[in-house]
Amino acid sequence: MKLNAHYDNLKESYLFATVANKTAVYTKEHPDKKIIRMGIGDVTRPLPYAVVEAGVKAARELGDAATFRGYGPYEGYEFLRQAIADYYGARGVKLGLDEIFVSEGAKSDVGGILDIFDKDNTVLLPDPVYPVYVDSNVMDGRKIVFTHGDRENGFLPLPDEKVECDLIYLCSPNNPTGAVYDKAGLKTWVNYANKIGAVILFDAAYEFFISDPDLPHSIYEIEGADTCAIEMCSLSKTAGFTGTRCGYMIIPKKLGKCNAMWLRRQSTKFNGVSYVVQRMAEAVFSAQGVAECAENVAYYKRNTAVMAETFSKLGMWFTGGVNSPYIWLSCGGDSWKFFDKLLSEANVVGTPGAGFGACGEGYFRLTGFGKYEDTVEAMARIAKIL
Amino acid sequence: MKLNAHYDNLKESYLFATVANKTAVYTKEHPDKKIIRMGIGDVTRPLPYAVVEAGVKAARELGDAATFRGYGPYEGYEFLRQAIADYYGARGVKLGLDEIFVSEGAKSDVGGILDIFDKDNTVLLPDPVYPVYVDSNVMDGRKIVFTHGDRENGFLPLPDEKVECDLIYLCSPNNPTGAVYDKAGLKTWVNYANKIGAVILFDAAYEFFISDPDLPHSIYEIEGADTCAIEMCSLSKTAGFTGTRCGYMIIPKKLGKCNAMWLRRQSTKFNGVSYVVQRMAEAVFSAQGVAECAENVAYYKRNTAVMAETFSKLGMWFTGGVNSPYIWLSCGGDSWKFFDKLLSEANVVGTPGAGFGACGEGYFRLTGFGKYEDTVEAMARIAKIL
Repeated sequence: MKLNAHYDNLKESYLFATVANKTAVYTKEHPDKKIIRMGIGDVTRPLPYAVVEAGVKAARELGDAATFRGYGPYEGYEFLRQAIADYYGARGVKLGLDEIFVSEGAKSDVGGILDIFDKDNTVLLPDPVYPVYVDSNVMDGRKIVFTHGDRENGFLPLPDEKVECDLIYLCSPNNPTGAVYDKAGLKTWVNYANKIGAVILFDAAYEFFISDPDLPHSIYEIEGADTCAIEMCSLSKTAGFTGTRCGYMIIPKKLGKCNAMWLRRQSTKFNGVSYVVQRMAEAVFSAQGVAECAENVAYYKRNTAVMAETFSKLGMWFTGGVNSPYIWLSCGGDSWKFFDKLLSEANVVGTPGAGFGACGEGYFRLTGFGKYEDTVEAMARIAKIL
Repeated sequence: MKLNAHYDNLKESYLFATVANKTAVYTKEHPDKKIIRMGIGDVTRPLPYAVVEAGVKAARELGDAATFRGYGPYEGYEFLRQAIADYYGARGVKLGLDEIFVSEGAKSDVGGILDIFDKDNTVLLPDPVYPVYVDSNVMDGRKIVFTHGDRENGFLPLPDEKVECDLIYLCSPNNPTGAVYDKAGLKTWVNYANKIGAVILFDAAYEFFISDPDLPHSIYEIEGADTCAIEMCSLSKTAGFTGTRCGYMIIPKKLGKCNAMWLRRQSTKFNGVSYVVQRMAEAVFSAQGVAECAENVAYYKRNTAVMAETFSKLGMWFTGGVNSPYIWLSCGGDSWKFFDKLLSEANVVGTPGAGFGACGEGYFRLTGFGKYEDTVEAMARIAKIL
């Protein structure tokens, strides 16, 4: 029996595991210190009332023979796919229900979608990058090339015609940088992908944080995207579903065989999302659900506003924060050293930019997902030591 | 961009989709007929009360800031892994919590576990076989060889030393045949796998249906299995979780790198099972949960007893039914013709054995998951036409 040798090419430790370990060691040595965690992108606000009540009702339905449900459709219940189609429709994006696939989270989709592509494709990733894009391709042994984000391009790189690629990852609003492509930027990518016959894997997990009305929430707001792009989205950040687990993927019919291949993949390696969770997800898209989600997002954005104000006062360059829960901060040097400094001197945990790739060195990611009071305190502590 | 060309080697249509299509066509042409479905292995009894209440409580917890939970552990919450460990412990199987991985269903595990194995392995599958084992390997381009189940070996094939293989699939109680390996049979496989350095992928999804106290529920009841076997299990059949979605996989630490590789795989391509669902799963293993599950399983077994009695009277050979929800019936000829006959003359839907592989031809699968009254009526109709 031979194991998948590509796993040997993975870096030893997952970024957030290292952050967690360093934090655990510090906490053990300093049990009296109050650590404020602004590292991992996990939400803290409770689920919307509408979502909880939908979950309670669905669980009770499963306990009654008259309303019990067994296996659901591989691609998700129509009630949820219709709710997602309506959500897109409100922004002028028309989707067929057979172009929407419900999943138990964008991370599973990001990993899973690679199944339908040959190992022989070259993958273009942004640097800095969400490590999952890298690792899932390393596991398959695909060749990876990078586009470079920096201060000059505002961490929003555009295509470089000299670099050959088959699969292109874009994440906007971006994790980790919080930068958001405008329509012109995305249009450049769509044109490029269509021209070279590449597929864009577009991660829209943070779309709900966009407040600027001119910025695109979906790549399908760009003409031509339906012949070159697959979009993945998650309710983790929209509705606090990090522990509830639901997302969806859109594969346009115009994208050739991909749609049918993914359905075949899901019918073989997946059995649908929990009925209870799908009812909870449906409630996210109700009028009450959307309003409650918007309230939670406003709460997080009050945090990023405090953070932005602090770093502006300190004269530190950053991007993100406005249409995103992340602030991407220039820390002026070794980002793991900055991590250690913030942890030991301010007892604040962030994520070192170097963990997101070579271009992340010199930068630091902080999230607005914490409690407001904690965020205010963390900024006061940081202002004191910097 | 190149698609995964192995998908071209998949058979056009998924077995159960064909069954569903044929049934839909008949129903449309005969809207007055009452169809009784004994085809797909889906449960019909509602979830146990203990499970529903656990789900309601968990959903409410997520709606309260004081008890809200975000990302859970990739491998599942400790409360659930402990419950699973205790369930195994009661049968004398000692598991470390770090050997248990909670998933959203055995089908995802069956598909996912292949990620850690090289494409270059030869896979040994039983014939007849659950189509997912075949298709998930075809998608990766692995070489597949078969062991043959037949009336002589009671559809419980044993190793053939002439056939080289690296990965061995076993499913006991078996889907589709309902046949169950005894300890001696499994011991033969374990010894064989250890001898040739193969890994057994053991599907225990139907273990809760075993009533014979001498039959093994888990492959780890067999000495030596912890150096050669991975076990997958599901709560779909145990507790009616086909629409609720929860399962688990056991990868012993003694199985070398597999355990660490799977954790790495899950931390990259998965973000844990819904907290609500994990609390529902925990309740399955409570004293009340187990008792309620046993009641539901007894209900289904009353069905298979009626079925067994009918076919015995008709003088038709079958296996399964006693320690399994499936009856595997010798239909004496073309199994798709038998399907059509049952559908058109008795308005009963089953699954043609040919859909499970070449050795399935001449056989037919019927499930005991329906309503008792429907099962009795279906048997009366079948007895009339055969």
